[in-house]
Amino acid sequence: MKFNIALLAGDGIGPEVINEAVKVSDAIAKKFNHEINWTPALTGACAIDAVGVPYPDETHEICMAADAVLFGAIGHPKYDNDPSAPVRPEQGLLLMRKKLGLFANVRPTFTFPSLIDNSPLKRERIEGTDLIFLRELTGGIYFGEKGRKDDGETAFDTCTYTRVEVQRLAKKGFELAMTRSKKLCCVDKANVLETSRLWRETVQAMEKEYPEVTVSYEFVDAVAMRLVQWPNSYDVLITENLFGDILTDEASVISGSMGLMPSASVGEHTSLYEPIHGSYPQATGLNIANPLATVLSAAMMFEDAFGLKEEAEAIRAVVNKSLEQGIVTEDLAGKDAKAYKTSEVGDWLVANL
Amino acid sequence: MKFNIALLAGDGIGPEVINEAVKVSDAIAKKFNHEINWTPALTGACAIDAVGVPYPDETHEICMAADAVLFGAIGHPKYDNDPSAPVRPEQGLLLMRKKLGLFANVRPTFTFPSLIDNSPLKRERIEGTDLIFLRELTGGIYFGEKGRKDDGETAFDTCTYTRVEVQRLAKKGFELAMTRSKKLCCVDKANVLETSRLWRETVQAMEKEYPEVTVSYEFVDAVAMRLVQWPNSYDVLITENLFGDILTDEASVISGSMGLMPSASVGEHTSLYEPIHGSYPQATGLNIANPLATVLSAAMMFEDAFGLKEEAEAIRAVVNKSLEQGIVTEDLAGKDAKAYKTSEVGDWLVANL
Ligand SMILES: CC(C)[C@H](C(=O)O)[C@@H](O)C(=O)O
Ligand SMILES: CC(C)[C@H](C(=O)O)[C@@H](O)C(=O)O
Repeated sequence: MKFNIALLAGDGIGPEVINEAVKVSDAIAKKFNHEINWTPALTGACAIDAVGVPYPDETHEICMAADAVLFGAIGHPKYDNDPSAPVRPEQGLLLMRKKLGLFANVRPTFTFPSLIDNSPLKRERIEGTDLIFLRELTGGIYFGEKGRKDDGETAFDTCTYTRVEVQRLAKKGFELAMTRSKKLCCVDKANVLETSRLWRETVQAMEKEYPEVTVSYEFVDAVAMRLVQWPNSYDVLITENLFGDILTDEASVISGSMGLMPSASVGEHTSLYEPIHGSYPQATGLNIANPLATVLSAAMMFEDAFGLKEEAEAIRAVVNKSLEQGIVTEDLAGKDAKAYKTSEVGDWLVANL
Repeated sequence: MKFNIALLAGDGIGPEVINEAVKVSDAIAKKFNHEINWTPALTGACAIDAVGVPYPDETHEICMAADAVLFGAIGHPKYDNDPSAPVRPEQGLLLMRKKLGLFANVRPTFTFPSLIDNSPLKRERIEGTDLIFLRELTGGIYFGEKGRKDDGETAFDTCTYTRVEVQRLAKKGFELAMTRSKKLCCVDKANVLETSRLWRETVQAMEKEYPEVTVSYEFVDAVAMRLVQWPNSYDVLITENLFGDILTDEASVISGSMGLMPSASVGEHTSLYEPIHGSYPQATGLNIANPLATVLSAAMMFEDAFGLKEEAEAIRAVVNKSLEQGIVTEDLAGKDAKAYKTSEVGDWLVANL
């Protein structure tokens, strides 16, 4: 098969981790007789520096023309303390999500047996955790009307959802649940918010189309607790944009393997794969960043975007092997163990595929 | 001294835990020569059953006339799966907060050395944790305009904040930080929300009035992570209503002592003290609920509402003693240890004051 992949390395350690994912993807493609055509494009702070906007039109066209997008990370400390700067990298991210119609962010949290002791949680709490959040990504308070009134003394943000937006996200949730343990949790704040009540009634109405799926409804505050107490009691969770932002980040640290968690954003025009970690600016250029989350994001891309399960499994298998054999960057290396460089981990993966 | 306290026992285990807090408060009052006049009033599901509304006018008048309010818990399972029922207990809670002007919810999370192993977190992660959230409680998306459009197909909620609302909450945060380690964290989502940008600029402008306080600004998703990773790195945190709802609940489980955490809501007309746990309907009437969070809420009331520090310390000391000696309800009793009844714990506290 032949694929066109848009390559958005982004800022900070983005280019370094993307580089390793490209190496591994190319090696897999060679092994299985595929051909990948990579098209790099700018996004984030580097795009602002180069062309003045964080998600240039040219980048958008490259993404639209691609079979999938592989994304690194964006963000630069020079924007961190000035969230009201007129142009910021995050705007690029939001614009990209909206223009590409990436309405479902797929965020798994699972554990690696060899890393379980890195978790801040006790072993018996985290063992067996394997959950997936589907976060709505192009609606809600992120994209509603916002602004100031009363000479700037009053600020407002509007959270809006339509039934159709909820349905298309929930549909993915039900379908995903059907491929797993058939348990779906709808996370909302229906005791307070009207948008949450729309979410809940919409999901309730869909239950009869999926009679095998057991649906539970939980308030966002209760989920924030149970994620820490009994993360392994969850399977598939669906939720709106802002709740998803908070809860998926909370979920990402409980496994102790944040540096390894991949993610996908799927939607109308294409799909995008990225590690969940940030641009880690302090590590930029040091060749120390952990590339495994990006490599595992490439695996998700092979499986979900191209339907190539065997290729994906081969990538996951070699990642597991590297973990077992301690071929890892400094964030995962034991106290007295050798820490490998970002590129050394990538080389090892390629050599051991 | 003489105090009038409004007593809102509420639903579920509310009346049982309130009962013990009253016993302990009366005993303390006697010991220190104070006189307490308790005025019971209805709120929650029991108020709906009795008079059709969850926060009757009569209850409001009793609260307004009181020096402080001691509150149990509200909520009943018959409302749980129907968040769009026309009358619900939570509405009473929100109305009460609004009408009493309880704009600051004070939620400490701390650890008890004897209970630290109950935490889902590893000991080294949780040890030393002693943080306080100030959650804004009468503004934001809870109280903004909400409704439906397009024949019910679109729902919206509006989050609104004024500079004055942020200032009065932040002022309490700065003042509290001054009495502690002089560290204040402002939690927002200023990279996306206009209300968060107002929060941030308002707090930034107040920094110069408190030159000794070190202020940090963190995004809500980052805080959701760090609370699990390094809870003891926080001291005082201020945040808006919805973020506070999620984060304070997340924080409450990390200590492993959720059943012991008190809280206060302070504001314009009076102040209210309540345990952070819920109405625990399954345990209603069984005399097994842990009364200590309510007893510790009464201690907060003595200290903060009445300025009686010695009395508060005496309550805290006897609570600590009960924990050390294992005079605890079943939620805290060790596997082979005796579990005391709710009322037995209260009796023991009174006898050992
Ligand atoms: C950078 C920010 C706008 C973004 C979000 O809130 O969606 C990030 O936190 C994420 O989760 O991808
Ligand atoms: C019951 C509900 C409306 C309430 C809230 O969200 O404020 C509760 O979760 C709380 O935190 O006191």
